[in-house]
Amino acid sequence: MILEAAILKVKPESSSDFESGFRGASRLLAEAPGYIGHELHKCVERADQYLLLVRWNSISDPIAGFRKSEAYRTWQELLSPWCETETSGEHYVEIRT
Amino acid sequence: MILEAAILKVKPESSSDFESGFRGASRLLAEAPGYIGHELHKCVERADQYLLLVRWNSISDPIAGFRKSEAYRTWQELLSPWCETETSGEHYVEIRT
Repeated sequence: MILEAAILKVKPESSSDFESGFRGASRLLAEAPGYIGHELHKCVERADQYLLLVRWNSISDPIAGFRKSEAYRTWQELLSPWCETETSGEHYVEIRT
Repeated sequence: MILEAAILKVKPESSSDFESGFRGASRLLAEAPGYIGHELHKCVERADQYLLLVRWNSISDPIAGFRKSEAYRTWQELLSPWCETETSGEHYVEIRT
């Protein structure tokens, strides 16, 4: 299992529109091959910052799959009016602790 | 529920020692009031980077509680030999999407 983590910076005063837009766009993510689940979190300290966590079956699902798909281009187009950063992030494997 | 997310940068070639040290220190976190659970993830793209996610009952648990405790000072001392960054991060609330 791979965790993708992205810090999303939204334009000032755009939080509400971004959250509505994200709800509409999130089905594109949920339909991607290898998608397990996602969480969107809003930062307490920085009003315009979000943390998107997406769980995938394997590293190839987001990198060779979703990011190269037509669905990803649509996803970016839907969110770009409010986002100041790319909506894809870094990838992690869990360490047992 | 509050999610604390911290990007931890460890010193070069220190991953294995850091992971062992983290296992020893993690009980300090797990015993903190308001602690729900944690995950440690190792970055695929950057060998010396980790993402620590800690779930707390409320924002006051990490900020007014753990961070001001003796346990937190011990936690920092245990991890500082390998970490190049502080081991506390930003706080987030989940948005329903």
